[in-house]
Amino acid sequence: MSSSSSLKTVRQLQVASPVPADIDIANSVEPFHISEIAKDLNLSPKHYDLYGKYKAKVLLSVIDELKGSGDGYYVVVGGITPTPLGEGKSTTTVGLCQALGAFQDKKVVTCLRQPSQGPTFGIKGGAAGGGYSQVIPMDEFNLHLTGDIHAITAANNLLAAAIDTRIFHEATQSDKALMNRLCPPNKEGKRSFNDIMFRRLTKLGISKTSPEDLTPEEVKKFARLDIDPDSITWRRVMDINDRFLRKITIGQGHDEKGMVRETAFDISVASEIMAVLALTTSLADMRERLGKMVIGNRKAGDPVTADDLGVGGALTVLMKDAINPTLMQTLEGTPVLVHAGPFANIAHGNSSIVADKIALKLVGPGGFVVTEAGFGADIGTEKFMNIKCRYSGLTPQCAIIVATIRALKMHGGGPDVVAGKPLNNAYVTENVALVAAGCINLAKHISNTKAYGVNVVVAVNKFSTDSEAELNAVRNSALAAGAYDAVICTHHAHGGKGAVDLGIAVQRACENVTQPLKFLYPLDFSIKEKIEAIARSYGASGVEYSEQAEKQIEMYSKQGFSGLPICMAKTQYSFSHNASEKGAPTGFVLPIRDVRASIGAGFIPLVGTMSTMPGLPTRPCFYDIDLDTSTGRVIGLS
Amino acid sequence: MSSSSSLKTVRQLQVASPVPADIDIANSVEPFHISEIAKDLNLSPKHYDLYGKYKAKVLLSVIDELKGSGDGYYVVVGGITPTPLGEGKSTTTVGLCQALGAFQDKKVVTCLRQPSQGPTFGIKGGAAGGGYSQVIPMDEFNLHLTGDIHAITAANNLLAAAIDTRIFHEATQSDKALMNRLCPPNKEGKRSFNDIMFRRLTKLGISKTSPEDLTPEEVKKFARLDIDPDSITWRRVMDINDRFLRKITIGQGHDEKGMVRETAFDISVASEIMAVLALTTSLADMRERLGKMVIGNRKAGDPVTADDLGVGGALTVLMKDAINPTLMQTLEGTPVLVHAGPFANIAHGNSSIVADKIALKLVGPGGFVVTEAGFGADIGTEKFMNIKCRYSGLTPQCAIIVATIRALKMHGGGPDVVAGKPLNNAYVTENVALVAAGCINLAKHISNTKAYGVNVVVAVNKFSTDSEAELNAVRNSALAAGAYDAVICTHHAHGGKGAVDLGIAVQRACENVTQPLKFLYPLDFSIKEKIEAIARSYGASGVEYSEQAEKQIEMYSKQGFSGLPICMAKTQYSFSHNASEKGAPTGFVLPIRDVRASIGAGFIPLVGTMSTMPGLPTRPCFYDIDLDTSTGRVIGLS
Repeated sequence: MSSSSSLKTVRQLQVASPVPADIDIANSVEPFHISEIAKDLNLSPKHYDLYGKYKAKVLLSVIDELKGSGDGYYVVVGGITPTPLGEGKSTTTVGLCQALGAFQDKKVVTCLRQPSQGPTFGIKGGAAGGGYSQVIPMDEFNLHLTGDIHAITAANNLLAAAIDTRIFHEATQSDKALMNRLCPPNKEGKRSFNDIMFRRLTKLGISKTSPEDLTPEEVKKFARLDIDPDSITWRRVMDINDRFLRKITIGQGHDEKGMVRETAFDISVASEIMAVLALTTSLADMRERLGKMVIGNRKAGDPVTADDLGVGGALTVLMKDAINPTLMQTLEGTPVLVHAGPFANIAHGNSSIVADKIALKLVGPGGFVVTEAGFGADIGTEKFMNIKCRYSGLTPQCAIIVATIRALKMHGGGPDVVAGKPLNNAYVTENVALVAAGCINLAKHISNTKAYGVNVVVAVNKFSTDSEAELNAVRNSALAAGAYDAVICTHHAHGGKGAVDLGIAVQRACENVTQPLKFLYPLDFSIKEKIEAIARSYGASGVEYSEQAEKQIEMYSKQGFSGLPICMAKTQYSFSHNASEKGAPTGFVLPIRDVRASIGAGFIPLVGTMSTMPGLPTRPCFYDIDLDTSTGRVIGLS
Repeated sequence: MSSSSSLKTVRQLQVASPVPADIDIANSVEPFHISEIAKDLNLSPKHYDLYGKYKAKVLLSVIDELKGSGDGYYVVVGGITPTPLGEGKSTTTVGLCQALGAFQDKKVVTCLRQPSQGPTFGIKGGAAGGGYSQVIPMDEFNLHLTGDIHAITAANNLLAAAIDTRIFHEATQSDKALMNRLCPPNKEGKRSFNDIMFRRLTKLGISKTSPEDLTPEEVKKFARLDIDPDSITWRRVMDINDRFLRKITIGQGHDEKGMVRETAFDISVASEIMAVLALTTSLADMRERLGKMVIGNRKAGDPVTADDLGVGGALTVLMKDAINPTLMQTLEGTPVLVHAGPFANIAHGNSSIVADKIALKLVGPGGFVVTEAGFGADIGTEKFMNIKCRYSGLTPQCAIIVATIRALKMHGGGPDVVAGKPLNNAYVTENVALVAAGCINLAKHISNTKAYGVNVVVAVNKFSTDSEAELNAVRNSALAAGAYDAVICTHHAHGGKGAVDLGIAVQRACENVTQPLKFLYPLDFSIKEKIEAIARSYGASGVEYSEQAEKQIEMYSKQGFSGLPICMAKTQYSFSHNASEKGAPTGFVLPIRDVRASIGAGFIPLVGTMSTMPGLPTRPCFYDIDLDTSTGRVIGLS
């Protein structure tokens, strides 16, 4: 079968065997100028801003312009519980789109998360897919992109500086002095509130419009935030694997007068601002979300927001370009929107709502938008449905579950799979019984995902060592468990051509939806009821709350935040909280240790034990990365 | 006089009186698409990468392409010793270029530093000029630009993480284990060195090519950097005014096993990588400079570099786009190259060599490149000549010294000028004697600057309160002190039209150079001889070294770094080290407290008492900054 697309930018791949290194495949192709990719989506130069030759930011105004036109089909890609090696979810996402766009003549857009730059220099390589299913140029995808994560870092840390500085200035000034500085006299000696101050006045229930009219009591309420340092949940961030910033003491300079405080840096993608970017729907909505982010409490117990600190507007200004998703391309010339990459643990791990919305309009009815959800379907797809779709109002028709024979054998009782160590022989020789036993994990993901009302298609990402009998066992199990279809894919080795069967299955699945979207829990459940609904879906028999979690749930409920969806933090390596429990464990009691509030993003994250700041190994991969200064080309990135 | 330029992009300004707010002037003008500005410079789309509609990165390859063609005139803008209010150096730089380009039909490029983003949200507003002499769009100039400072932050902090992580891993591993991890076996069990390791082997004088052949002694030398934590001069950076990071303790997490260390964050523009960017001349040169940056010493005393840590290549990759300067435009449509913004204190405070080089080729013979040097001429112009011109090999023809009646009155004995407080009456009523007395400061700057062999033109930035007699007094003093010319300018109120006389004077000055460029000191002077040459030029009778400075000078001399130029750190508010000594003090003894080495950038910075991390006031200007979400426009930026 040869390419038959009407897209002008389709590129015919010449595939080699064995499959060369990712970077060599990526570098073997000259990307199209991104304006060519845009043209295929009927975008004219007024719809986007170029960032060099191969990236463009698509402007949010496209959503308004296409308001009247219909959406395409909406497909989410999740996976079974993976091995530490990963089962090729991104690669499958890209391969499917290459099939739909380059071989099936469909309008298609791939929606991907922006990878965090820090880990690119640590252990893992890039996140642009692999083999003949990749996003290019790979170095631009993995580094800087169009500066969105840098904008998040800047905004996050401006807010952090505002918090400590405010506490510092409040400690040394009377109410009156604070008030005088916040509302200084103009040339005529008149004092006034500015716009952001009126937000705080409204929150305090003060309807006066002139600073002179405030009573001393009101001055205190308005000017003194009285932040409890121990309550601060806002941390600084950096897009670097810097383990020495996991716990630090700040304020030790002479001029800070002993106001030291213990705090920490997270990696930038763990910032709530990244989650806000991923969940926002417009500039106005982003302004509101950034302003209402809670950074901690007043000593009296009520929450303090970014707008209370006067900084919500400035954060929005720093993020105003970041809200526009970045257009790139696959190896076969199909369009990709890269946007947002919230941590899949303390945030929801999905790319942005605005990218999906723009994409759905651009492909239009009959077209396809394929978006990836982080981690296994128990976490990624669950959050896609209950958090992202709730805020977007969008309805997916089809959910893909990516599986590999390797991971299924592990769930069937195969030996441990450890990154960096050779695979046990069980994984490279035929063992149908092991595969069949492991399908219990796949079946659980299928039934959980089906419950949302979507059609589930299983994509088996085929390795060269997989046997026909093993692959058939998976297909049969999947269908028996209620999958709409189950398809063997070879996009890693063959590009889009290797995922055409998957494309056909996805198209049928999308065209034959019979049920409406159903959420796992209603928002008016209490925080605990919501947590328990999610835990039950994993197979848990109950939930156990730490004393701290109990207190936090009580506090956030009292503060009026119990109506938000829950963002579960849990290992991705098991349905349970115990990474070594493979298959589909039942009867376990899920422990909840720590509960936070991401009020701006709009969810209640449960905080697991997973580090939010990775480290570097003894020999980080930066040892191999360099620039060929004669060509300007990046070498050694993988 | 009306505009008579052959540029297609010239914009006729309609000026209002009194002069409106900077942001209102900036917003009253629709900028040209940056490709139009590029076209006027004979740049085609292959010569630049667009970053949205109003910014483009001009590719370094332009230098090679135009290698055979001649350079334009090269003009540097310095100033007299300023008041804390600033005397309009950037505004004069922009106004002069608007005059040359829009009124005198000259090819002209303005070369400016990229402002630091952090302070934009603190006390000071933006740095795009002012009144009718500005760079637009002002918000894009002040925020993010094309991501260069973000790239510097990322590169700086990757190196910082590499340092602490390496110390950590060395502490827990034997030489052999370290070696095994640094050179792991491939699939065939073979170990090998990679390119960056050969840099270290060469430095160590080891010519072996296989890890297996190293003796245990060589393994130790190669694999164990043995960094002395107390010797580390490399700090983390952030482009935020965050005073609580001025002194911090890191490594307090449980997993870091008690390896705590006291350190600090600087603001990003203080990073040595910013200075490297400003002084580099090509990708290959940048790779070498980044690799040889010294971060501290081995316990044995010899310096440890970024390449020793294996990270010089990765730093170059992070900086590969930052090396291309950003093209923008003035209010009157003349081209501006914005590039690099090294701290004027611990670094040299000048925009980049590559921007100036590209600009000189683009304007060609008869055209003008006007570049600004930070701080007063005693610091800014001195570093421009002795550091920047030394590395660039470029020769300026003309140096401008910007003066104001206000600052001259201060030097003549006028009362203190304090930011945020009303000006004393002496500054707004005629007082010729005060002005004349203050010209001693101007005269000293003129004679110091003339000594480099350039023609000196004094630009008096006129305020509405200045009288004819006062202005004449300055003109007469300047000419008597040896200035080539002295001109009254009103570009703030009138745009380029107000600087036409300055433009004419600068043209004559450039066309009539009679001397070659002379440096203040030869590089083969010892570190102390160089410091003393600079001190004498200030009027000092001697130099006093702290015990610490003595030790550092001895160490850096021993390490072989004494051949580098000196980067003086000193208050910009006096020729001496004492900010309150106005005019032209003599006979003082200049204290040298702390000496560092910026080996990658290529100079020896003396470190003053000026903070390298600013703070936020009680009411930072972010209170006024917001986004008009209906138009996407930034409001409140000043």
